[in-house]
Amino acid sequence: MKKILVIHGPNLQLLGKREVDVYGTTTIAEIDKDLRSIAAAKGVSLEIVQSNHEGEIVDLIGKAGELFGAILINPAAYTHTSVAIRDAISAVAIPAIEVHLSNIYAREEFRHTSIIAPVARGQIAGFGKMSYLMGLDAAISLLP
Amino acid sequence: MKKILVIHGPNLQLLGKREVDVYGTTTIAEIDKDLRSIAAAKGVSLEIVQSNHEGEIVDLIGKAGELFGAILINPAAYTHTSVAIRDAISAVAIPAIEVHLSNIYAREEFRHTSIIAPVARGQIAGFGKMSYLMGLDAAISLLP
Amino acid sequence: MKKILVIHGPNLQLLGKREVDVYGTTTIAEIDKDLRSIAAAKGVSLEIVQSNHEGEIVDLIGKAGELFGAILINPAAYTHTSVAIRDAISAVAIPAIEVHLSNIYAREEFRHTSIIAPVARGQIAGFGKMSYLMGLDAAISLLP
Amino acid sequence: MKKILVIHGPNLQLLGKREVDVYGTTTIAEIDKDLRSIAAAKGVSLEIVQSNHEGEIVDLIGKAGELFGAILINPAAYTHTSVAIRDAISAVAIPAIEVHLSNIYAREEFRHTSIIAPVARGQIAGFGKMSYLMGLDAAISLLP
Amino acid sequence: MKKILVIHGPNLQLLGKREVDVYGTTTIAEIDKDLRSIAAAKGVSLEIVQSNHEGEIVDLIGKAGELFGAILINPAAYTHTSVAIRDAISAVAIPAIEVHLSNIYAREEFRHTSIIAPVARGQIAGFGKMSYLMGLDAAISLLP
Amino acid sequence: MKKILVIHGPNLQLLGKREVDVYGTTTIAEIDKDLRSIAAAKGVSLEIVQSNHEGEIVDLIGKAGELFGAILINPAAYTHTSVAIRDAISAVAIPAIEVHLSNIYAREEFRHTSIIAPVARGQIAGFGKMSYLMGLDAAISLLP
Amino acid sequence: MKKILVIHGPNLQLLGKREVDVYGTTTIAEIDKDLRSIAAAKGVSLEIVQSNHEGEIVDLIGKAGELFGAILINPAAYTHTSVAIRDAISAVAIPAIEVHLSNIYAREEFRHTSIIAPVARGQIAGFGKMSYLMGLDAAISLLP
Amino acid sequence: MKKILVIHGPNLQLLGKREVDVYGTTTIAEIDKDLRSIAAAKGVSLEIVQSNHEGEIVDLIGKAGELFGAILINPAAYTHTSVAIRDAISAVAIPAIEVHLSNIYAREEFRHTSIIAPVARGQIAGFGKMSYLMGLDAAISLLP
Amino acid sequence: MKKILVIHGPNLQLLGKREVDVYGTTTIAEIDKDLRSIAAAKGVSLEIVQSNHEGEIVDLIGKAGELFGAILINPAAYTHTSVAIRDAISAVAIPAIEVHLSNIYAREEFRHTSIIAPVARGQIAGFGKMSYLMGLDAAISLLP
Amino acid sequence: MKKILVIHGPNLQLLGKREVDVYGTTTIAEIDKDLRSIAAAKGVSLEIVQSNHEGEIVDLIGKAGELFGAILINPAAYTHTSVAIRDAISAVAIPAIEVHLSNIYAREEFRHTSIIAPVARGQIAGFGKMSYLMGLDAAISLLP
Amino acid sequence: MKKILVIHGPNLQLLGKREVDVYGTTTIAEIDKDLRSIAAAKGVSLEIVQSNHEGEIVDLIGKAGELFGAILINPAAYTHTSVAIRDAISAVAIPAIEVHLSNIYAREEFRHTSIIAPVARGQIAGFGKMSYLMGLDAAISLLP
Amino acid sequence: MKKILVIHGPNLQLLGKREVDVYGTTTIAEIDKDLRSIAAAKGVSLEIVQSNHEGEIVDLIGKAGELFGAILINPAAYTHTSVAIRDAISAVAIPAIEVHLSNIYAREEFRHTSIIAPVARGQIAGFGKMSYLMGLDAAISLLP
Repeated sequence: MKKILVIHGPNLQLLGKREVDVYGTTTIAEIDKDLRSIAAAKGVSLEIVQSNHEGEIVDLIGKAGELFGAILINPAAYTHTSVAIRDAISAVAIPAIEVHLSNIYAREEFRHTSIIAPVARGQIAGFGKMSYLMGLDAAISLLP
Repeated sequence: MKKILVIHGPNLQLLGKREVDVYGTTTIAEIDKDLRSIAAAKGVSLEIVQSNHEGEIVDLIGKAGELFGAILINPAAYTHTSVAIRDAISAVAIPAIEVHLSNIYAREEFRHTSIIAPVARGQIAGFGKMSYLMGLDAAISLLP
Repeated sequence: MKKILVIHGPNLQLLGKREVDVYGTTTIAEIDKDLRSIAAAKGVSLEIVQSNHEGEIVDLIGKAGELFGAILINPAAYTHTSVAIRDAISAVAIPAIEVHLSNIYAREEFRHTSIIAPVARGQIAGFGKMSYLMGLDAAISLLP
Repeated sequence: MKKILVIHGPNLQLLGKREVDVYGTTTIAEIDKDLRSIAAAKGVSLEIVQSNHEGEIVDLIGKAGELFGAILINPAAYTHTSVAIRDAISAVAIPAIEVHLSNIYAREEFRHTSIIAPVARGQIAGFGKMSYLMGLDAAISLLP
Repeated sequence: MKKILVIHGPNLQLLGKREVDVYGTTTIAEIDKDLRSIAAAKGVSLEIVQSNHEGEIVDLIGKAGELFGAILINPAAYTHTSVAIRDAISAVAIPAIEVHLSNIYAREEFRHTSIIAPVARGQIAGFGKMSYLMGLDAAISLLP
Repeated sequence: MKKILVIHGPNLQLLGKREVDVYGTTTIAEIDKDLRSIAAAKGVSLEIVQSNHEGEIVDLIGKAGELFGAILINPAAYTHTSVAIRDAISAVAIPAIEVHLSNIYAREEFRHTSIIAPVARGQIAGFGKMSYLMGLDAAISLLP
Repeated sequence: MKKILVIHGPNLQLLGKREVDVYGTTTIAEIDKDLRSIAAAKGVSLEIVQSNHEGEIVDLIGKAGELFGAILINPAAYTHTSVAIRDAISAVAIPAIEVHLSNIYAREEFRHTSIIAPVARGQIAGFGKMSYLMGLDAAISLLP
Repeated sequence: MKKILVIHGPNLQLLGKREVDVYGTTTIAEIDKDLRSIAAAKGVSLEIVQSNHEGEIVDLIGKAGELFGAILINPAAYTHTSVAIRDAISAVAIPAIEVHLSNIYAREEFRHTSIIAPVARGQIAGFGKMSYLMGLDAAISLLP
Repeated sequence: MKKILVIHGPNLQLLGKREVDVYGTTTIAEIDKDLRSIAAAKGVSLEIVQSNHEGEIVDLIGKAGELFGAILINPAAYTHTSVAIRDAISAVAIPAIEVHLSNIYAREEFRHTSIIAPVARGQIAGFGKMSYLMGLDAAISLLP
Repeated sequence: MKKILVIHGPNLQLLGKREVDVYGTTTIAEIDKDLRSIAAAKGVSLEIVQSNHEGEIVDLIGKAGELFGAILINPAAYTHTSVAIRDAISAVAIPAIEVHLSNIYAREEFRHTSIIAPVARGQIAGFGKMSYLMGLDAAISLLP
Repeated sequence: MKKILVIHGPNLQLLGKREVDVYGTTTIAEIDKDLRSIAAAKGVSLEIVQSNHEGEIVDLIGKAGELFGAILINPAAYTHTSVAIRDAISAVAIPAIEVHLSNIYAREEFRHTSIIAPVARGQIAGFGKMSYLMGLDAAISLLP
Repeated sequence: MKKILVIHGPNLQLLGKREVDVYGTTTIAEIDKDLRSIAAAKGVSLEIVQSNHEGEIVDLIGKAGELFGAILINPAAYTHTSVAIRDAISAVAIPAIEVHLSNIYAREEFRHTSIIAPVARGQIAGFGKMSYLMGLDAAISLLP
């Protein structure tokens, strides 16, 4: 199954519009465009969703097992608080790649712990948009 | 009021379909069927909901005070993270019974603490489907 | 921009109807009425929302940056668990005032820590309805 | 083997006679009577022991592997301090059900941790005498 | 009794003269002037004291029970270290309002815990001089 | 009821014979003699027991409620480990006085915490034999 | 030297006048009277001081080494916060007895730790006025 | 005195009969036989006891000071919970060797801390039966 | 400067030869070959070093500032213990990319904390050889 | 401004008179004499104060900003407890040097943490009188 | 393969020359002599190395897998800090025995935790030279 | 013996060349020059070494006991991680002075703890080059 689910977690709709000194001016629209062109080049289709709702993300992942071959997720704030997203990833058989725009280990103490990471296949943090692009490469390489 | 609200928490829609080696092949449809036949035998009606949304569960419990005599809840992942569900249970006057399919104390460290338990009437964990059935018995015995 | 967004967090729809011995008999309708008359007197308009959904509150705050000049929020249970609401407040440029009806520092240990407070402009706790009214005064004084 | 060992831990000989405002007026004699009638109805025989001695309980469990098909135990105070009882339960091959009269998660902090739970099959807490009765049902269902 | 005791804790005599980039240029003389005009307008008299001595503050509060109807206190550094001031507030029957110029939750870790807050009626932090003025309003509203 | 139960906890049978540099040369026989002469002078009778067995001490306290008016106990090592003795003291209605020969707060870290103290009426530590004698005085003063 | 220094720590001037439901109606004047009559009977003279000032208590103890044979101290709130008083007691060669009216181990968590206890000769807690009287007996027995 | 006391702690009576995949099929009878033949060869006599009772072990050690030249002990579960056994070993003047069949540092977290070790002469863990045999060698070398 | 320093930390010389079930059969020779062909394709030259010596790695990084444009490092065991490597990376002005073959967040607790990460530009973990290859891509993109 | 304020913290008036085995026989009079002769030689005048009162030390430092060019302070016991002294040092613009006679890191655990150090310019500990003399040198070198 | 690698960790070259009151006067030369004569008697050859360099020890262990049948190691200070040595032992297939001259559990708190122990076959501590000799016996018994 | 060993720990070879905004432009060559001229003036000879290798520093200190009268060491990063350097200092009989250029207590949390300090004679931190110069003075004063 050559399909990958891409999830942008909470507040990422604001990317590039707010706190540009911290996160830069790249928007998720721009990230999505780059993701889609990589995917297209490799014959992979993408489903891309941004959601601020933990439950919605859990719904999506719960259904992903039958529809997708891998998940690329930036859990943003839910990285540090959501056991529900962790359990959803555990429950579905497909691999999940966790990405972060910023280096979460160089930020506040509470951002150093990811509840998601132990059930993800791997984690990429700190490379801005490139975190996503490398994450997609990794996800594609894990497709069955 | 001979009505009980049954809440299945996040990811339970996948029960019996995913991670069957861990959770077995019983589905929530099967659990619900058994719950309904016990309830019917005792002249009690059930409202059964599965939700992955913390806010939805809080909504439901908030309204339950006037519509139900007791709550039977498997908070799943929210057991360990949701102060909002705890506060909702505290707020309504009816008793809540917390159930878990697996023995949460034999799993990862972070699953050993339930934020919900201090405001529940009691907790039953580790007996698979039977946790629910015993929980319903307990809930019925607490109906006014 | 003379508009302020007022957010009542989870379970506050029950205020004045449940646990009246703890929280008193004031309802949020009554609080809202008082907030609106203060606002009217000062030529400020209010948008008031109650929500039990973390994601919904994150949505609201995410959009508030362009529509409002300040936020007055009682995060209730999410005070202690929501990094997503914290990040939303950080992301938007307008000031947020955190209010609590009860003195959270005189309650259970887990209520002593606010994840929101470090990104709020200030915090007011323990004065019942008056926490909101003073919070609105503070918010108005911070309008551009 | 249709035999179940029931163990009442330390201080339970005082049940119903002391601190009746906390634990109610039910005595262990009454609990035992109800347990025996359930057991009789299901063709199961019970051995019931109350002991204040950790070593005695360890002795009993150590021998139980050959004599009983399951153990129903309220470890009371030893719940929180006895690695020896935990190891005994681990050592014998038969399942153990842990029960508590009160909701230990709504009491003092040090009662929130059970050393026994990780090796028990499951735990039932907070339903008074009914905790035992449901525990017996569960134990019977686990008999070979 | 229409009298309120106002206490400025340690180092506040330097306010507006030192670290003006952090605390601004407002002095306690200016704060006191505003407090007195509010009080005068509401027919309340104020006793205002600044002290760097924990023991002196304990003395003052110990006598306040018979002389004042409420206490408005900015405990400054003693917020985080003084059990003696806490006990003094507990001992006298009148309500105490705790105020802080800065948002103590956005500063160093050790400033996030107030030993005083659990025995105060409420806490206001982060609004500069306005913290005091709102605190006085709250104190007046609590006068018998 | 003019009877007091005196309990010497584990290893106290060795007092005055072993580690005399630490505990001195006084034996429990000598302590008991002094306790008895004080008791006799005040018309009180004593039952004195030394036991190394936690369960035995729990047995004794469990029966004490009907036979004695107060308990004087040096729980020794069980001070730091026995929830069972704590629960026994809680369960019986008569007051218990906790005594220690040495100043437990000037010894190893793990001896600084008494599990028993919160349910004892009071604690006396560090005065050698005199801890017992003062403890008996206190116990007598608490007799009904 | 037949002289003992008695120190009443912070807020004890209020004893018997405030929070009488917690601390009873005994005043320190009454305690002092009883202490003086015991001292007189044993040919010992007392210097009794009440102070809310940590520095004053440190001053007093610093001079006590040459003027007194023992110290009887209820450090009250400073029990939990004053390294300075601890160091003063360490520095002078005479023994200090620490007393508390209430059982500090049955109160808030932060009252369970005494900074003073490791350098005191012994500690007596929980017997109200009798804590002082027994403490004086112990102090007298330690006079050279 | 050429006598050594050997103590097998709780649940060791089950060794070789239960959990053979974890602990192997060696029984304590076999271990004892090997210990006795080593002892005989070196002209040392052994007293070997297995007990599940903490108090009994404390009794034994308390008397050992006069009857034996050294103690060889596998405290099993009491390793992690018994201050009483630690105090008994401290009290008697003879050296104690602590042995464990398994490598306790490669097991659950709570087994990594030995309350006994600080007062033992040394500790041997992880070599199965050989832990005992080496321990006996060490004990013999320490005989006066 | 089109040169990148690649550092393989301690024990990586064993990769593919030992613990092949955990780390797979890929050797660092194979990883290096792939790294070199990517570098060659992009006109970048690589210096690749494997060392088990913390001091040697510190030496290397200390000199790297003048010789290389970026560092690609798998600190292996030193990830969790070396402040010296962290300080070396901080001291040199060029960016460092931290890579791990395995998902360190899915392994033992002590491997969840990287001392290096806060000073690295970013971290990639869990993708086996691909972690290195993506890391090199990221390093190249950061070359001046 | 060629003036330096020297502060001796609590209990230092006893130096050289008490606990001479620990602190030696040097008195603060002798230290002061040496400090004054160094200062005189360098054309600097000193104001030297010993105080046991936290508030007094806070008063002194608060005024020092206008009168002195640097502060030399041995905070003694207040090193570990006084946020007020820390805040006073932060508030005044002149540098403060923290000195200790003994090596506080080789003493009790609670002496290993200095609340003052983060706002001091530097710290010197463990050299007896020489700590002060070197501290004065450092202070002089920092004079404007 | 009848060869065993013996590693003496950091500072052991000083054994018997420094701190003789703590470690005795035995040198590693003497220990090595005894080890060699035991080995010779059992037809085993030894390679003995002392090193203060963590990296060197890691190098040695890394190569040991092909050259030796077992490792006998006293990691000394690296016991408590070296994940690299731990990983090296994990990586090679041969068993490692950890020995300590002193009882590390009777020393400073930070010496109670061995990072190496969980991957060693077993640990022997507290018997001086005999720890090594018994360790060698154990190592020989584990040779293939 | 009029010789002192001076050790510059890891990364200090970069001093004055990198991070000049943090550490200034002074190089260790300049520090060494000043140290040598002080030493020459006092008739003391110096051996000065910079090393990034923990093992090398341990080697040096191990030999220092016979060659030098004191050690002056800036352990830099190893301050916080090296038990081996601590043990080396403990083992040799000569005094060691610990110096730091920066105030380590005003930096990251993990730099607040020195593993070396408890075995050093004293510590000087925060005075840049002057820390070394004062440290040398102290070392010279401690020469036999």
